[in-house]
Parts: sequence; C-alpha cells; structure tokens
Amino acid sequence: MGGDLSPDSEINGAIEALQEKNEFLEVTLVGKKEILQEKLNIINSSFKNELKIVNASQVVDMNDSPTESYKNKPDSSLNVAIELEKQNSVDAIVSTGNTGANLASSMFKLGRLNGVSRPTIGSYLPTVKGNTFIIDVGASVDCKPKHLFEYAVMGSVFVKHMLGKDNPSVGLLNVGEEKLKGNELSIKAYDLLENSKLNFIGNIEGRDILKGTADIVICDGFVGNVVLKFAESIIDLLRSKLRKHSEKSIFHKVWVGLMSRTLKKILKDFDYQNHGGVPLLGINGVSIVGHGKSSALAVKNMIYRAEEMVRKNINQKIVFDLKEYLIT
Amino acid sequence: MGGDLSPDSEINGAIEALQEKNEFLEVTLVGKKEILQEKLNIINSSFKNELKIVNASQVVDMNDSPTESYKNKPDSSLNVAIELEKQNSVDAIVSTGNTGANLASSMFKLGRLNGVSRPTIGSYLPTVKGNTFIIDVGASVDCKPKHLFEYAVMGSVFVKHMLGKDNPSVGLLNVGEEKLKGNELSIKAYDLLENSKLNFIGNIEGRDILKGTADIVICDGFVGNVVLKFAESIIDLLRSKLRKHSEKSIFHKVWVGLMSRTLKKILKDFDYQNHGGVPLLGINGVSIVGHGKSSALAVKNMIYRAEEMVRKNINQKIVFDLKEYLIT
Repeated sequence: MGGDLSPDSEINGAIEALQEKNEFLEVTLVGKKEILQEKLNIINSSFKNELKIVNASQVVDMNDSPTESYKNKPDSSLNVAIELEKQNSVDAIVSTGNTGANLASSMFKLGRLNGVSRPTIGSYLPTVKGNTFIIDVGASVDCKPKHLFEYAVMGSVFVKHMLGKDNPSVGLLNVGEEKLKGNELSIKAYDLLENSKLNFIGNIEGRDILKGTADIVICDGFVGNVVLKFAESIIDLLRSKLRKHSEKSIFHKVWVGLMSRTLKKILKDFDYQNHGGVPLLGINGVSIVGHGKSSALAVKNMIYRAEEMVRKNINQKIVFDLKEYLIT
Repeated sequence: MGGDLSPDSEINGAIEALQEKNEFLEVTLVGKKEILQEKLNIINSSFKNELKIVNASQVVDMNDSPTESYKNKPDSSLNVAIELEKQNSVDAIVSTGNTGANLASSMFKLGRLNGVSRPTIGSYLPTVKGNTFIIDVGASVDCKPKHLFEYAVMGSVFVKHMLGKDNPSVGLLNVGEEKLKGNELSIKAYDLLENSKLNFIGNIEGRDILKGTADIVICDGFVGNVVLKFAESIIDLLRSKLRKHSEKSIFHKVWVGLMSRTLKKILKDFDYQNHGGVPLLGINGVSIVGHGKSSALAVKNMIYRAEEMVRKNINQKIVFDLKEYLIT
C-alpha cells in the first residue's frame, strides 16, 4: 500500500504475473481489504480470482522512520507481509514502498542470514556491455571492510545465479587503480577482497562503471546511493536539454521529437521499470524492492524476480559462499 | 611537460592567450629548454617572441607518487614552476600534469592559506540550470566536518567572484534530505554549515546535482571523485550506444550521424575543454590544473582563469570569509 502508485500497480502487476506464469505462482495481496476488493471488482480478468487478500489496516509512508514504522505500524501492509513470510505463509515479498522501513522490519522480523553482519541493497546500472550490479546503494552509510567483503560475496552469488554470469568480476570502487589508493575503508577492503576466492579485479574508478569494467561494483552505501541517484537523473538532464533545444523553432521541435524516439530505444536500459526491482540481500527471507513509482509492468517483473530467487535458493548459496570464499 | 599532450598544448595555448589578451599578460614556459625552443622554431606567430622560457630538466609522470616526485624531481617543470611562484617571479601556474603531485608540491612549497586545514580541488558539472561547482573532487578522501565547511567557504568565494553568482547556494551531498540523514561526517558537517553565514540550503541527493539544485555541492573527496569521473564517462556511454545503433544499417548510420551533431551541441557543457581547468583552492598561491588531455584551447582558457584569479584576489577573499563565515 505504501508505493506512489499503490495499490493499482500491485494489483495489475500481480494479475499480469499470474496470466503469464500461473503454473506454480500464488500471489497474496496485503493491504486495506475494502480498497483492494473495490479495485478488483472493476477489473475484467478471471485471474483476479486467484489472488488471495490479507487485510492490513495501516500504511507505511515514504517519510516514516524505519524503526518507528516497525514499532508503531505493526498492522501496516509492509509489516503484515513480512510477518506472513516469517510464518512461512509466503516465500517472498515484493514492495514498492519505503525501502528503509522494509529493510529495518525485515531485519527485525526475519533476521540476518548466517555469516552476514549487514544486509544490503544492490542495484543495476546500464553499461556499454550490459548491466552491472552496484552494491551497496544505501543500506549502510558507515561501512567496515568486512561489510564490503560480504557485499562482494552476496553480489557475486546474485549476479552468477540470477543474471547468469559465470565467475562474475568484482571491482572495488575507488579514486584510483593502485592498491594503496583511497580511504582507510577501501584500502582495508582491498586486502580482504584480494585474499578471497572472489574474482576480484582490483580498484575501479567512477569512469569505469559505465564501461562495464566489473560485473559487480562494491562500495559503501553512501557512495553507491549518490552514484545510483546521479545515474538515474541523467535521463532527466538529457530530456531537459532536448526540450530547451526544441523550443527554438518548430523545426527544432520536430527534429527533437524524432531524435527522442531513437534515444529512448538506445537508453532503454536506464529505465528501471524493466529491471523488476532489486533484492534485499542478507536477510533471512526473499524480498524485492521496487521504485516508488513502479508501474504494473515493473511489479510483474518484481514478482518474477522474487519467484526466481526462491526457486534458485539464492540465500542458501550466499550462506555457503560466505564461509567458502573468505581466506583468513 | 607532464601532460599527455605536453608541451604542444601548452605552447599553442600560451600563444593563443597572448594573441587574444596580451595587454597585461606575461607567460613563462617551464620545461626542457631545447624541446621547447625546437617546437617554437617551427611556429609561425610573432607572439612566440613574448614567451619566456625557464629550463627544467625533469618531468613528473602521471604515475609518480606525489611526495616522491616532490623529493626526487626538484628540477621537474612542475616543481620549478611552483618555485617560481614561491619567489614571486610568476603570479600563478597552470598545469595539465599530475594533479596529486601538483597539490603536494604546492602545499610543501607555497603552504596553506591562513585558516585552511586542507587545500582542495573543485570542479564543474553541467546542470539543467548551467554549471554547478562540486568540491572536493579528490584532494582529501578522509575528511572531517571542518574540512567540508572550509570547502563550502572556498567554493562560495570562487563561485561568487569567478562565476559571477551572487550569494551562491551550498548543498551538502547526502543520501537523503532530512537533517539527520547520512554518515557521521555529513551529520556533523550539516551542523557546521547550518550555523554559518553561508547560503546553506541543506542536504541534496545524487539526483539533485544535475538539476542544479545547489550552486555548490559539498562532499568528501572520495565521493566527489567518483561522481566527477562517473559524470565525465556519460558521454562515452552515449557515444558507444549510438555507435552500436548506427551499425544496424546504412540508414541507422546516417540517422545517428545527424543526431550526433545535435547532441554534441546540446551536451557541449560536458566538454571539459571549455571550462579552462579547475583551481587548487586553499594553497598560498594561484594554480589551475587541467585535464591530462587538455587541448591548446583548454590551456588558453586555463591561463585566462589563472589571470582572473590573481586579478580578483580570490585568495585574500577566502582568508577573509573563513574568519567571517564561521559562527561558533
């Protein structure tokens, strides 16, 4: 219920998911029952009858503080959904609401995976060679070296099994390529990564991200958050520059209109709707979080991602690799 | 001598600068005398006779360590030039070589301005509202709150007097807008900035940079370095995506060719050649550093910038405002 377009995107995305992939998939909508029922009543699809509904009387807003929403909104759609997962009534949850609240409640209710000190959120960035995975993008803004190591393991498992890249390369985001470059955190993290069984390719710089130099970009959540949000805003800058250009004359307007179509095609990787959300990694459960403005298409893709993570036992693989990859 | 296109860009840039603005401008070339003389011999411009040459037998490479190049290459073009500034033989220096070495040698030889704990490097980023100034972009990767405050003051003086923006706004780069968001550094820096006479507009996020929300973006050098290099690589991503698109057919090729011309015009702010380098701020002297691949045009603009910084007494204004702006 807490996303910008909730619950419409959720309802429509769930129905689309069932339509295309209903064999083993069961979807439960968690939220204010009357509202959900009312919305479902006007939908013309037989698949709506397959949706279960669990009532939740509260809603976590985008501005709610993570720990407070956990304490003060126990009957929110978010907390009820996570509780369902805790009780094994569902295998995974999907949400377009407050990510910080989601992470906090997931940690409190589900706990962390064995060997994980800090759960994390990774995300996709388009590069000249396809998508790269950047982790952490904001779960922890004051990281220790071992957290970065754990991110690298979790990212490697996710990219290998979910994105299908064998032996994915891990780059440490830094201000220079040499081993001793950077701040205290990156210098110590370099050591840990170098002495692991990960496919560590060393430091990479800001300019290497979009080149696709590394399949996985490791960084502190402060840096990752700034980079991700900066990247997401590039399209807006381009759009604004094009609009200004188009205002010069009717000819410019037509020309920009034609260009925009090609640019949209070329830059479609920058459209988060296609990714289907990103995983919370390191919690003892499966959780996919989406952009606040996720469309039904995005929600459908998020449901597929969640199902895939469960089916592929990603969490079990993370626990195994965390023990396996560290050389001490 | 240490830039990727040195000394050609330097010689041609210097001559162009004298041609256009020779009234009060004197330019001294510092480097291997024979090489410089040889290059000058084949140049057909009377302005070449106005150039002075000071010999320097060594060259600092891009890979030289900052402190070692200071100790082991005292007769490098970089160190000789800074020595000339120390002795007041020149008022400012301009370099396209190793920035770290430049910063270190400048600190050792010229010292810091009164009230400055850490010299810094700021840079330009294009936004929908014109350029914004991001500071620090790599001089210090482990900052304390007071360093960020000093960056804000130095950035404000530079943007006000050099870029002509009255009462420029200062934003603190962070992972959220609320006062208590972020890491330890940003939370404490927020306090200092809020209690100063600066035009502090609070926290800004990665997505706000290109919107031009703040005239000056304050951050730790680690974050700023990553963001700047990431931003510089966007054009390359776009170019690569366009190239791939153009390879589909001859029609696509022609179409992309036409688009590229417009895009180049629209995105010209992303071309660092136009900025004329960025200042080292906080050292007791004037120093403009340029991209390693700076063209003659870029060097010319760097020389203008250096001259302007001297003429406008930027350093004196920084010392004054550092005392004036802090409310304790």
